[in-house]
Amino acid sequence: MQLFGIHTRLIEPKDNLVDVILDGLRRQKISMEDRDVLVIASKAVAVVQGRLVRLSSIEPSERAKKIAEKCNLEPSFVEVVLREAEEVYGGVSRALLALKNNVLIANAGVDHKNAPRGYAVLWPEKPHESAGKIRNEILEKTGKHVGVLIIDSRVTPLRMGTTGVAIGIAGFDPVRDCRSDKDLYGNSLLITRQALADDLASAAHLIMGEANELIPAVLVKNVPVNFSEEIDLDSAIISAKECLFMSCITQNRVFLADVYE
Amino acid sequence: MQLFGIHTRLIEPKDNLVDVILDGLRRQKISMEDRDVLVIASKAVAVVQGRLVRLSSIEPSERAKKIAEKCNLEPSFVEVVLREAEEVYGGVSRALLALKNNVLIANAGVDHKNAPRGYAVLWPEKPHESAGKIRNEILEKTGKHVGVLIIDSRVTPLRMGTTGVAIGIAGFDPVRDCRSDKDLYGNSLLITRQALADDLASAAHLIMGEANELIPAVLVKNVPVNFSEEIDLDSAIISAKECLFMSCITQNRVFLADVYE
Repeated sequence: MQLFGIHTRLIEPKDNLVDVILDGLRRQKISMEDRDVLVIASKAVAVVQGRLVRLSSIEPSERAKKIAEKCNLEPSFVEVVLREAEEVYGGVSRALLALKNNVLIANAGVDHKNAPRGYAVLWPEKPHESAGKIRNEILEKTGKHVGVLIIDSRVTPLRMGTTGVAIGIAGFDPVRDCRSDKDLYGNSLLITRQALADDLASAAHLIMGEANELIPAVLVKNVPVNFSEEIDLDSAIISAKECLFMSCITQNRVFLADVYE
Repeated sequence: MQLFGIHTRLIEPKDNLVDVILDGLRRQKISMEDRDVLVIASKAVAVVQGRLVRLSSIEPSERAKKIAEKCNLEPSFVEVVLREAEEVYGGVSRALLALKNNVLIANAGVDHKNAPRGYAVLWPEKPHESAGKIRNEILEKTGKHVGVLIIDSRVTPLRMGTTGVAIGIAGFDPVRDCRSDKDLYGNSLLITRQALADDLASAAHLIMGEANELIPAVLVKNVPVNFSEEIDLDSAIISAKECLFMSCITQNRVFLADVYE
């Protein structure tokens, strides 16, 4: 497997993202082939979709103000997070643990970082559909059938720092189901599945970085995934009841009760 | 960045792991260079360290028997998990959420999968030290200064399937601290760090697979990490108090109380 960071200029709201990426590939003399996977930073997709919120335009609720004080965040930023989130479970300094599009993610994907000053960037609209549209646009413009993966950064339990997480997937199966496979000793695997899209998100995240690298996309060749037009997006998520972590996560009643006082 | 899966025969307790891996590289005509990172599956390290437990030799406690019934696991397997774990927070069918070596990991790293029938494999002894020893052995045998990363599989909240997780690290900084960096718009990053070792673990996990692939190691070239003899292993972990997830995870009192009845 080979990963190539695609260097571009700063992506702006009026840009055509596919054109900017294809231009970057041409300048770096990297050819795109069938069965490559193009990994794109969620922020780049969000920016060209105009998913920017000017924080000074937001009127924070009382709830947002109280959470903001507890978590050392701006009230208007918290208000945007509360509007974007499907659930908020609790928080620490500078981050709320939120559910958004079936993903457990800090601040519901809302971010100041790499946003114009005074703005927050939201997650792309319908990330899986967005990935599909980008895939189709690439097919039209290049004739190549590629996989497309939109990724963001996430934190994971007890680990310092962020890794990649897959939020929009098109053209390849996000999960390898190993339940019919044999292990090294010929025993059948009972429950094992492999989160290939998240593994790939992390691989690309390593190349993209978190700061001003200007690498909003990574082209990956020889990815050991199953390419397919029709993929099962639900296979990548697990219900709260089956989830090893959610079975121990309860909404932080102390935290929320305080806020509702 | 390029990743090369190293195919080997089945690793056995009497093997010298470094020799098996170097032999695999030679047969595949892949050269190891300074500043490559060798990623190794924890199970391969554990097997050559003799970290196998014959489950029929284990006498399960009453607590283990009750948890086993709740979680659809063998009592002797649960007993081994309870002995290995520093904490157990709760569980779902076939998995307990446990703390081991500062990592939140299913079943405290104990696994039936890819273990000889009737045995469970534990995590390697002192994984960071084990990585350091492998690094030194490679330096002695090849003259090359490489990074070494021992990885396992983990599940993450609300996601179906496993990704890679770094459990033993030698020769490169596990985390990039971006707090002095500027973002795309020249704003300083306040809290961002990047979990490079975990990102790389996932990249390699994609290549290794979960079943009978016989790829216990992956050689990675052009990894964007900082190579160093003296690394800060504590930089890769976060305290429970600061952790976004742990702040919402409480030991599952219902689950444990029942068991203690």
